[in-house]
Amino acid sequence: MRPLIQSLPGSKIREVANAALGRPDVLAFWFGEGDETTPAVITEAAIESMRRGETFYTHNLGLPELREAIAVEMTRRHAPAGRSHPITAGQIAVTSGGVNGLMLAAQALIDPGARVVAVTPVWPNLTAQALIMGADLHCVSLAPRIGEWSLDVARLLDAITADTRVLIVNAPNNPTGWTLTRTEQAAILDRCRQTGTWIVADEVYESLYYEPTAGGCAPSFLDVAQPEDRLVVVQSFSKSFLMTGWRLGWLVLPPSMTAQMGNLIEFNTSCASVFTQRAGIAALAHVDEVTPRVVSHLRLCRDTLIDALAAHPRVQVARPRGGMYGFLKVEGHDDSLATAKRLVAEAGLGLAPGEAFAPESSQWLRWCFASRDTRRLSDGVERLSRWLSSQ
Amino acid sequence: MRPLIQSLPGSKIREVANAALGRPDVLAFWFGEGDETTPAVITEAAIESMRRGETFYTHNLGLPELREAIAVEMTRRHAPAGRSHPITAGQIAVTSGGVNGLMLAAQALIDPGARVVAVTPVWPNLTAQALIMGADLHCVSLAPRIGEWSLDVARLLDAITADTRVLIVNAPNNPTGWTLTRTEQAAILDRCRQTGTWIVADEVYESLYYEPTAGGCAPSFLDVAQPEDRLVVVQSFSKSFLMTGWRLGWLVLPPSMTAQMGNLIEFNTSCASVFTQRAGIAALAHVDEVTPRVVSHLRLCRDTLIDALAAHPRVQVARPRGGMYGFLKVEGHDDSLATAKRLVAEAGLGLAPGEAFAPESSQWLRWCFASRDTRRLSDGVERLSRWLSSQ
Repeated sequence: MRPLIQSLPGSKIREVANAALGRPDVLAFWFGEGDETTPAVITEAAIESMRRGETFYTHNLGLPELREAIAVEMTRRHAPAGRSHPITAGQIAVTSGGVNGLMLAAQALIDPGARVVAVTPVWPNLTAQALIMGADLHCVSLAPRIGEWSLDVARLLDAITADTRVLIVNAPNNPTGWTLTRTEQAAILDRCRQTGTWIVADEVYESLYYEPTAGGCAPSFLDVAQPEDRLVVVQSFSKSFLMTGWRLGWLVLPPSMTAQMGNLIEFNTSCASVFTQRAGIAALAHVDEVTPRVVSHLRLCRDTLIDALAAHPRVQVARPRGGMYGFLKVEGHDDSLATAKRLVAEAGLGLAPGEAFAPESSQWLRWCFASRDTRRLSDGVERLSRWLSSQ
Repeated sequence: MRPLIQSLPGSKIREVANAALGRPDVLAFWFGEGDETTPAVITEAAIESMRRGETFYTHNLGLPELREAIAVEMTRRHAPAGRSHPITAGQIAVTSGGVNGLMLAAQALIDPGARVVAVTPVWPNLTAQALIMGADLHCVSLAPRIGEWSLDVARLLDAITADTRVLIVNAPNNPTGWTLTRTEQAAILDRCRQTGTWIVADEVYESLYYEPTAGGCAPSFLDVAQPEDRLVVVQSFSKSFLMTGWRLGWLVLPPSMTAQMGNLIEFNTSCASVFTQRAGIAALAHVDEVTPRVVSHLRLCRDTLIDALAAHPRVQVARPRGGMYGFLKVEGHDDSLATAKRLVAEAGLGLAPGEAFAPESSQWLRWCFASRDTRRLSDGVERLSRWLSSQ
């Protein structure tokens, strides 16, 4: 294998989860998915498609009707009345999950040796993909202030040099919950226009947003960009439609990039399964029933978790505006990987170590609060409290 | 976009197919799939899985029970009694289709600038993937002799220099039907062992083989290699289980490579859908019902097509030993892209231009003979004959 590939670290989250194999008593909050199955109205659309015999190859860029439905939904979210540019089906590429969309963007944009800037902490897949493509990777850290992480915009703008090919940014952010403001977005876009830098914006948590907004979702680069800006937005059905296991996502692209992206999809996965895409069409047709219910329940989960954690004197945590993670620091337990493993073994509590996301968050722990039954969250906090008392 | 990505040619097969949009009267044989839907016993396994709520993420390398079933099947095919090394589940990675497996192999092995040798003509995805990863690509051509394509082994061995990182070889070959012999395989493996070259063997057509053999399939590098040889074999459920649209395949790897391949899968698609993998398990459980029927029907298709084509004095074609393509040359029509487009427009016949696969096959046409009703094949040949008579 390439030495570079061999050197990519294995998932530290899985390292913790593996320590719990055969331990059904562990309350697990380590992975980025909830415990609720996909709504039947979505699943049944896939089943009907299979039974109709839709088991053949299809368009690289996705079924035209799915691309159209995505364009309508993205226009609703990001181009309400008054915005001059609706998002069109010609800008949409259907992908085999959000992570596949991110990898396609990396392949499309990153030449060997190209300078890539990433805002961290971040889901490690984003930086790993850049490295796989041979990037010269530079990370700009968010910084925590009383539990809430924030961006030093001036530092980021300085890092976006004239030779910076790609900026990778994920907001609402996994793991910190940090969300870009409109002002920050405008400054970043302005800078990237000057330097010719592409923005790869992972916005898969945009619908899981708990502040009041017009479009019902977090600030997106699509709100401020023009169609031909160097912007690739990555989206997914996973989180807001409870479809993690389906592997279905999409890209919003400059129109001039779409045809070649279809080619890249041909070389990566050829296409997403037709029946999976039918599930996506059903999801979008029922977005008004599914997503508000998911978000309203997640808000309850968030508040249950954060209220309980914040009440503990040795825990530092902020209420995230978006996403589905609490990101916390426990006084006296600064090695997150060791702490996470001890929590599994000694408390039956499964959290993700902050070390998985960046060195600067190695003292932190990520807690996915997507839980059908909020009592699981309270029980988890109780396990943490008891463990801390026993130290 | 990267200039390299922009320069990747679009599919010439799709270019021909696009010329037929809105022409339901065209008999299409251009794509590499048949017209028979997936057997119900396979589809129903996926439906049961969905209804059981298996809609979550799963292992990067695939469900342990699927990996085990694949290992059993590959041992049956390639390690019958007497071979010292059965193929184990620890060598198997489940992928989102054969093409995804090929891309993963390219990412794992090809550093920017690495010398890669490919045997052509070949499905263009294989060479495109190497270029995406920055390969210094060298092609070694098969040569046609009275319709049948064959390999000049000495020329290939010369091309496999000490600094050759990867050899890409697809046999049974798409599009030519060329199949490696055991002797050729041994010579290639021997050479690659000397030079430290990795063999990426696309063997997705191995079960579609029409000569009598022990394992029921074409010669495979797995028959001659040791587990720790630098060999990655790419397989797929698509062809022999009628599952093209499912996007499910697998890799057979040296055991020492498997864990990091799981990591790469995490960064590309995370995993194949559980319900799709359940379909794969059902397919393997019914391999003895499904595949022999598929192969026996394809043999009939092959003979129907080749007999009819060979009877035409202006057509040069050989009977392929494996795969599902007739590869033909029509006297007086040496520009395959132009000919394919004219055949669509003037004869209502859809073939793939040989130009899609390599410059050296630009005078040839590929005809996929996977057709539920063999009369479609006879009708197609009749359309070709009528068109030729009218010239």
